[in-house]
Amino acid sequence: MRTVPVTFADVVAAYDRVAAVVRRTRTERAHTLEHRTGHRVHLKYENEQETGSFKIRGAWSRISRIPPGELSRGVVAASSGNHAQGVARAAALAGCSATVFMPTDATPAKVEAVRRLGARVELYDREQALPADLVTEFARATGATPVPPFDDPDVIAGQGTAALELFADAGELDAVFVPLGGGGLLAGTATVFKTLAPRARVIGVEPEGGDDWVRSRQAGRPVLIDPPRTIADGARTRSPGELTFAIVSALVDDVVTVTDEELTATVRLLALSERTVVEPTGALGAAGLLANRVRLPHNSRVGVILSGGNIAPAVFAAIVAGEASRDSW
Amino acid sequence: MRTVPVTFADVVAAYDRVAAVVRRTRTERAHTLEHRTGHRVHLKYENEQETGSFKIRGAWSRISRIPPGELSRGVVAASSGNHAQGVARAAALAGCSATVFMPTDATPAKVEAVRRLGARVELYDREQALPADLVTEFARATGATPVPPFDDPDVIAGQGTAALELFADAGELDAVFVPLGGGGLLAGTATVFKTLAPRARVIGVEPEGGDDWVRSRQAGRPVLIDPPRTIADGARTRSPGELTFAIVSALVDDVVTVTDEELTATVRLLALSERTVVEPTGALGAAGLLANRVRLPHNSRVGVILSGGNIAPAVFAAIVAGEASRDSW
Repeated sequence: MRTVPVTFADVVAAYDRVAAVVRRTRTERAHTLEHRTGHRVHLKYENEQETGSFKIRGAWSRISRIPPGELSRGVVAASSGNHAQGVARAAALAGCSATVFMPTDATPAKVEAVRRLGARVELYDREQALPADLVTEFARATGATPVPPFDDPDVIAGQGTAALELFADAGELDAVFVPLGGGGLLAGTATVFKTLAPRARVIGVEPEGGDDWVRSRQAGRPVLIDPPRTIADGARTRSPGELTFAIVSALVDDVVTVTDEELTATVRLLALSERTVVEPTGALGAAGLLANRVRLPHNSRVGVILSGGNIAPAVFAAIVAGEASRDSW
Repeated sequence: MRTVPVTFADVVAAYDRVAAVVRRTRTERAHTLEHRTGHRVHLKYENEQETGSFKIRGAWSRISRIPPGELSRGVVAASSGNHAQGVARAAALAGCSATVFMPTDATPAKVEAVRRLGARVELYDREQALPADLVTEFARATGATPVPPFDDPDVIAGQGTAALELFADAGELDAVFVPLGGGGLLAGTATVFKTLAPRARVIGVEPEGGDDWVRSRQAGRPVLIDPPRTIADGARTRSPGELTFAIVSALVDDVVTVTDEELTATVRLLALSERTVVEPTGALGAAGLLANRVRLPHNSRVGVILSGGNIAPAVFAAIVAGEASRDSW
């Protein structure tokens, strides 16, 4: 029998910590998606979460377990996106300092957002250094605690709390569609649903231009792919995490891909019919449902996590205008 | 003593009818607006209502009171926008036919939306006919019941149900900011708050380029202004209604204006910070708050109704991109 790195009890314990600091985002039926798919569709709006994505759940789940003596030496992370903001916000809540390594080509607005949340940003050149090395070195030099973006049991348990709320609000489901980048949200969601609603199919959706999960599942082990080219900037991982791969392999029913065209069409549909702003990565699950990548019986009960809403205004504008092209990223 | 055309009891009675068919839209704190204003801000998301605006409340409030014998002859309305969709949807729910007169220059997407909701659309030339005449004539010829966009006690009571939910969810407030076009939503909101929370200041916000209310209040009677030029297409009324003017005169504390630039900046802010899609007319109340048009003590408890989210994709894209110009309308 396999040892499971994260249990349902871990997610419940994480929720005891997380519930106090995160928004309990809404779950609502989405009529337009229901007309298009013939299913009953429950959307979980993590794009409305504090800092604009689910990432604060995992960050706080991890940071809130750091003993006081260590916490005073701060935390450190590397991220060009939502994890950076989640860590910055969680550190501010914990009252500790945070250092976030961001690539020099990160969008200025995202760097500014992380700074505004109170973190110190260290810019690095992607050609010169690997973020994981920078974090390890910084942690060794300063005693700061690293907060990994996904491959950590506390982080995975924290992300699973979003699925706990989805289950509480939507009830029993036949399928759950989850955006898939590093796999933290998917692993946490599978942990929850395979306990509470084991008949629910749990489906991860990644971009076709960054299909490290599909290929790794075919290979039976995490493989490294070429640098992804996709508008889904939160899913440009080149390889699954070790822990997340183990959990996903054990619990997840399907991993499917969607094209960037399907993604942008989904972002546009969500804006115009559900009046909500979702970033391309955050729309992966919805795109997987709409693209009909997994056969489900008519009128299935389907949950979809919209995982984030941090999108550059120009990119969002181009998508809404129907002009999204490869020039945007 | 004035006779009041709509009472609080009328709104409560309307809610008994309306609650079954409308979405109980959420009310949530808006942190970015709080940082900007120094107040506690509760947003009521009527842009997430069925058909994308509060208009279904008034339409159903009116239509649900038509006796069966008359209902079989259908309903008729004139509107180029949200009222058309509200009437179409309410008629479909009531199981009666609906005829909606829309101008030939209405956006094809809006005409299509009304048809999709099951109504028959009659296009008319703005230069050739007045919509009120068309409705009256059609009603006389066919026995259909007219559903006015705002100047009707049942319609006003129906719109007030949005304020009832706002009060239920936000509690006592010091001020409420409401988009102002024909005045149905403002009159209904004032009716509710002046009963439940009489110390709350009720504030209507209209576009500077369509300031029929400000001028009418100065004149002490409804005046007719030149055709408005504003991006807020739902507030291009040339004159207040008789009933709405009477109620607003009796109950509303302030009517203020915002510029189109302030409106589009607010639509953009709501998209990027609250991740919600609001049309310019729907953002009038939020723009009035952000523009600081009414002096309020620091840390006031403020309610804001976001009244609609039906915006042409190209216009929304231009606003998000920060390129909104007078070319858009």
